[in-house]
Amino acid sequence: MAGLLKRVSVIGSGNWGSAIAKIVGMNVLENPDMFDPEVYMYVYEEVVNGRKLTDIINTEHENVKYLPDIQIPANVVAVPDVIKASSNADILIFVLPHQFVFDTCVKMKSAIKKAALGVSLIKGFILSEGEGIQLVSRVISQTLDINTAVLMGANLATEVASEMFCETTIAVEKPEYDSILKRLFETSYFRCKIIRNVSAVEACGALKNVVGIGAGIVDGLGFGDNTKAAVIRLGLMEMMKFTKVFLEYLDLRPPEDNSIFFESCGIADLVATCHGGRNRLLGEAVVKSMKKRGMPGVDIRLLEKEILRGQSFQGPLIAKEIYSYLKDKNMVDQFPLLVAVHRICSREVDPRNFIDCLREHPEHL
Amino acid sequence: MAGLLKRVSVIGSGNWGSAIAKIVGMNVLENPDMFDPEVYMYVYEEVVNGRKLTDIINTEHENVKYLPDIQIPANVVAVPDVIKASSNADILIFVLPHQFVFDTCVKMKSAIKKAALGVSLIKGFILSEGEGIQLVSRVISQTLDINTAVLMGANLATEVASEMFCETTIAVEKPEYDSILKRLFETSYFRCKIIRNVSAVEACGALKNVVGIGAGIVDGLGFGDNTKAAVIRLGLMEMMKFTKVFLEYLDLRPPEDNSIFFESCGIADLVATCHGGRNRLLGEAVVKSMKKRGMPGVDIRLLEKEILRGQSFQGPLIAKEIYSYLKDKNMVDQFPLLVAVHRICSREVDPRNFIDCLREHPEHL
Repeated sequence: MAGLLKRVSVIGSGNWGSAIAKIVGMNVLENPDMFDPEVYMYVYEEVVNGRKLTDIINTEHENVKYLPDIQIPANVVAVPDVIKASSNADILIFVLPHQFVFDTCVKMKSAIKKAALGVSLIKGFILSEGEGIQLVSRVISQTLDINTAVLMGANLATEVASEMFCETTIAVEKPEYDSILKRLFETSYFRCKIIRNVSAVEACGALKNVVGIGAGIVDGLGFGDNTKAAVIRLGLMEMMKFTKVFLEYLDLRPPEDNSIFFESCGIADLVATCHGGRNRLLGEAVVKSMKKRGMPGVDIRLLEKEILRGQSFQGPLIAKEIYSYLKDKNMVDQFPLLVAVHRICSREVDPRNFIDCLREHPEHL
Repeated sequence: MAGLLKRVSVIGSGNWGSAIAKIVGMNVLENPDMFDPEVYMYVYEEVVNGRKLTDIINTEHENVKYLPDIQIPANVVAVPDVIKASSNADILIFVLPHQFVFDTCVKMKSAIKKAALGVSLIKGFILSEGEGIQLVSRVISQTLDINTAVLMGANLATEVASEMFCETTIAVEKPEYDSILKRLFETSYFRCKIIRNVSAVEACGALKNVVGIGAGIVDGLGFGDNTKAAVIRLGLMEMMKFTKVFLEYLDLRPPEDNSIFFESCGIADLVATCHGGRNRLLGEAVVKSMKKRGMPGVDIRLLEKEILRGQSFQGPLIAKEIYSYLKDKNMVDQFPLLVAVHRICSREVDPRNFIDCLREHPEHL
C-alpha cells in the first residue's frame, strides 16, 4: 500500500516555505490514506548560532532564522541536498526565491519522478537577460517537463503561520489533481479555492507587487483611504489588462473573463499587499528618502539593505521589465500606474508627481 | 441665453453635502456656458454658537458644524427652505440622511421642474415599515417623477474636501446626461467615470456598509491583513450575489456582468470603507465592548451616542433588513458574512465567532 501514497516535498524554507511546510506536514498526517507521512523540506544549508540550520530544524522543529516561534511538525524533515529532497516526491512544492528556481530545477532534473506535479508558491516573474519576463510555473514546467500548479492568495507568511484565517487560490489545469491539492493544503484557517488558468493566477501574484509600491507611495505622501483605494482599483484594472496582453504575447491562454481577479489571488492579495506587504514599505521608504535627501532620492539597493537586510524587493525589477515590454509594444500610455511606479523606482520621476500620472488615466475616459 | 443655463441645487449640507457643494460651486463657475453661476444648498436650519447655520455659511462660506476649515465657494447659497432651494433647479443633488429623503421629496414635489434630473449621493437603502429595503434613487424617482442618477465611490467626505485624489462612479440611464454630469462633478482631484445601471451601483453603496462592520470586527479581534483581505473579498462576493437577487426581486435590471464591481463604487469604496469608514469603527467597537463587558455586549444605540454623537450607523439597519429578506427567501446559508454581521450587531452571536461563520463559505466549495 505504501507505494501508492503520495510523497510530498517542499523545495525552499524561507518564512513562506516554513509556513507551508507546517500546513503540509499536518495535512499528510491527517490524510494517511493519501499521503506518505514524511515530508522532505529542502533547506539551503547555513550556520545559525554555530549550528547547521537543518540540524536545528530537525531537532527543535523550528526554523529559527526565517520563521521563529512557529512549531513545524516533526514529520517535516529538513534536507540540505535538493536531489535527495526531491527525488522520490510525487508533489514538489516550490517556494524558493524566484532567482534560484531555474538553477535548482536543473539540479533536480535527472532525479525527479516523471509523473511528479509541481506546485509553485513563488510570487514573481523570472527575469532572464534578453528574454524579458517569464512565468515561474512555466520555467518549472519546461525545465522539469512536469505539470505545474500554482498557489497564490492574500497569504502574508507570518500571519498564515500564526493560523490567522485566510484564503488562497490554487490553479491547476487538470481537474484530476483537485482533490489531492485541496487535502494537501486546506486547513480550518487556510481555505483553498481551486480554479483553472495557472498563468493568469500567477501573473496576478507578480503584478500586485508593483501596485503595492504605488500604495506605499501614496501612504508616504500622506494621502488617505480614498486615494489608496483609487490606486488599488486603477492598479487592478492595469493588472487585468496587462495579464491579457502579456499572456497572449507568451502564447498562453488569457482568462476568458475577469472572474479570477475576484479570487484571493486577485483583489484579496492586492489589498493585503497594499496594506501589509514589503513592496508597500518600499514605496513609503522611497518617498521618505526623497523628502529627506531630495530628488533623485536613494537607490533601492540601499533600501533593500536597510529594510530587508539584503533580500531584494521584487516590485521594482518587475516594474522595469513591464516598462520595457510596454515600450516595445508602444503601450506605455495605457498603463500609467505601472509605468509611474517604474519611473519613480528608477529615480526618473519625483514620487510627489505620482498622482499627476494618474489624473488622465484611460479608466476615467 | 441665461434661461438655457442649468441651475443646480444641493439638497443636504452634512459633511458630504458640503464637500460636494464645494466641487459643484467651483464647476458651475468654470463652465459658464452650461451652468447658472448660483447654486442653492438646502440647509436644515439650526443654531450654532448663537447664530443661524445658513447665516454662517452665507457670510463665512464655511459649514462650521459639519465640515469645518473648508472654504465653500461664495456662489453656493445656503437656503433653509427646501422648496425655495429646489424649485428652479434643473439638477437636484440629493445628499441628505436617507431617513429624510421621502418626506423631503414630498415637500418639494409640487415645486420642482418637471424635467429636473435627480442625482443621489446617498449611500444606503431606505427601510420602510413592512416594505423592507428600497433603493433611495427609486424613492426619489417615484416620489418626484423624475430621472435619477447616482454618484457613489471611495469618497470619504473630509478627504474629498481636502482635495485628496480620488475617483467616483456616476450611473445614469440616459447617455444624454453624461457630459453635463461630468462637467458638474469632475475636478483634477475628483475623477468621474460614467456608467449605466443606476440600481446596481446604488446597491453597492449600501451593501459595503455591512461588510465594513465585518472588517471592523476582524480588526477588533486582532487579525491581520490576510484575514481582512478575506473578509473584503468574501463580502464583495456576497455583495455581487445579493445585488443580483435583490434587483430581480425589485423588478429592476441586475448588471449584465460583474464589471461594475471593479468600478470605484464597488471594490474601491469597499476597500476605503473597510479601512476608514464609520461602520468599520462600529465593528471594532462591538468587539471591544464585548471584551470589556462580556456578551451580549453593548447596544449599538449606545455606541452611536459615544462614537457618532447621535448620528446613526447605516450598516446594522441594512444588515437586519438583508437578513429578514434572506430568511424569507430561504437563502441565509448562501450569505454567511452578511448574516453573521447582522447576528453580531443584534447580539445573538459572540463577535469572537465571526470567523467560524466564514470557514465553510460557499465560495470555498
